[in-house]
Amino acid sequence: MKISDLGEFAFIDRVSKGSLHRKDGVIAGIGDDCAVFRVSDHLAILLTADMLIEDVHFRRGEIPAELLGRKSLAASISDIAAMGGTPREAFVSIGIPENFETEYLDKIYGGLNSIAAEFEINVLGGDTVLSPDRLVMNVALTGEARETEILYRKGAMVGDIVFITGEPGLSSAGLDLLRNNRDFANKELFLAAHFDPVPQTKAGRILASTGKAHSLIDISDGLAADLGHICGQSGVGAIVEINKIPLAAELREYCRQFRLDIENFVLHGGEDYILLGTAPEKHSPDIESSLKSGGCRYFPIGRITDGASLTLIAGDGGRQELKLRGYDHFRK
Amino acid sequence: MKISDLGEFAFIDRVSKGSLHRKDGVIAGIGDDCAVFRVSDHLAILLTADMLIEDVHFRRGEIPAELLGRKSLAASISDIAAMGGTPREAFVSIGIPENFETEYLDKIYGGLNSIAAEFEINVLGGDTVLSPDRLVMNVALTGEARETEILYRKGAMVGDIVFITGEPGLSSAGLDLLRNNRDFANKELFLAAHFDPVPQTKAGRILASTGKAHSLIDISDGLAADLGHICGQSGVGAIVEINKIPLAAELREYCRQFRLDIENFVLHGGEDYILLGTAPEKHSPDIESSLKSGGCRYFPIGRITDGASLTLIAGDGGRQELKLRGYDHFRK
Repeated sequence: MKISDLGEFAFIDRVSKGSLHRKDGVIAGIGDDCAVFRVSDHLAILLTADMLIEDVHFRRGEIPAELLGRKSLAASISDIAAMGGTPREAFVSIGIPENFETEYLDKIYGGLNSIAAEFEINVLGGDTVLSPDRLVMNVALTGEARETEILYRKGAMVGDIVFITGEPGLSSAGLDLLRNNRDFANKELFLAAHFDPVPQTKAGRILASTGKAHSLIDISDGLAADLGHICGQSGVGAIVEINKIPLAAELREYCRQFRLDIENFVLHGGEDYILLGTAPEKHSPDIESSLKSGGCRYFPIGRITDGASLTLIAGDGGRQELKLRGYDHFRK
Repeated sequence: MKISDLGEFAFIDRVSKGSLHRKDGVIAGIGDDCAVFRVSDHLAILLTADMLIEDVHFRRGEIPAELLGRKSLAASISDIAAMGGTPREAFVSIGIPENFETEYLDKIYGGLNSIAAEFEINVLGGDTVLSPDRLVMNVALTGEARETEILYRKGAMVGDIVFITGEPGLSSAGLDLLRNNRDFANKELFLAAHFDPVPQTKAGRILASTGKAHSLIDISDGLAADLGHICGQSGVGAIVEINKIPLAAELREYCRQFRLDIENFVLHGGEDYILLGTAPEKHSPDIESSLKSGGCRYFPIGRITDGASLTLIAGDGGRQELKLRGYDHFRK
């Protein structure tokens, strides 16, 4: 069977079987934004990794080298944010084509160190190897969290409010703009969202320290797909009201101007790196106030339900099943 | 400037500047076999990563898939061994070409889990992405050690004995045999050394727990180059007696049969994954006896000296400067 027939998520399920060979210390293995292991009575270490391959995840002539460096670390910082942790130590492996210009590499590392400095992350090492023709990077990142505060995908409960911490769809609008070479007045906003996303560690820490949220994930595959991950791992369903999802005015304008379906960006666009979580309705006001006091945003967009389906309440009040069309790296 | 002109080690020096953005917790950053950070009063976490790219580090038709899986983790386990630590949690990122057979992937993960089980390592996660045409893997591995026991490259002192914990050169003989398609009676020994090296965590733990060794590294770049890393970081030189380096009888026979220079394999062959260290002469008998009691091997091969040169005492007693010709990923 080809990997393209099996698909990414079935492959990950397959890989996660038979992967634990020691019982002590492991809190969570494959299947969440980070793995979690215990190092002392209260302290847990989070671990995540992101691999970026040229011509798959980025095009060298398209993304400025500094921003490639920033984005390579941003994705992993967002995974730590999605567990409620604090990012700590980065490990960067890089495969470099033989004739690569060192100036380009200096810019990548300059960008990487700039975001590392902003988040007080140390770049402690990695591996440096030759790659035949494409640049390849892997960032592994550790984080710290109190074991009792960590937020998982699997904690959603029936009746929970579903919330997000920002406006989704801007990153995928940036990609759409690039791929279709569109001219648009506010294109810098979309390009920044796509090339230089801001991981929400502050929102993640606030949510974890309140102890009131039930589950959390970052939107990397798309709102629908990532809500699907929460529902799948929690054994629940969800209803989302499209009217409650915050829509950036620029995205509305972009979709109007080029006659594009805004729901596609908002529900299925990836790499937004905003947080998506669930919490009991009674705690929703407290969570909202904690997030807003910290300069973060909070938008309740739906509710966790019985069953296993994701239902969308459209603008006209009609209901439809929300399709899970998040990005699968292998399937077309 | 091209990366091939700069070279791997100059690039790493360049990258390590400006890589620390937070002071608390960091014990060692870029420049040793592992990075080290503190998580409690006594406990330190070690972190290392190895990237393997098809057609650079392996050829798909040459190495059996199970052994590729084993070797991808073995290199990182050896880095933990070289600091005297215990390997704990692995994180595997993999870039897979679209039409790849899942059976081949199952074998890679089967091999990876077999060596993980032998060393009681959990495979806690990673990243799974599409790669345009070549298989790419990155293994990040954590380890644990008492902070006071960790052995670094930088600890060698003038007068120290230089020792190794096995016979070097077998892995590079395996590669030579493959590349030149040679037929040899004992070729399985060399192929096993090349495809399925055994990381020496036990020797590393014994050396660390005795508290008597001054420095340690694993031989991945070659004996001369790795001794050069110890000397460079310790600000010392070394003398190595070629007659004291243990030579496997099969390697002698191989070099005799094909008229090859055995010193080239022994001094400059990489990927042996045996340990190379230094210790005060007075502790040499204790270290030898501790290693041998634990079923490990110990061969004193030279001495740490003043200055910055590596001197070789050849079989005939003549002295020559030992050339540092370890593997640079970028230079030809």
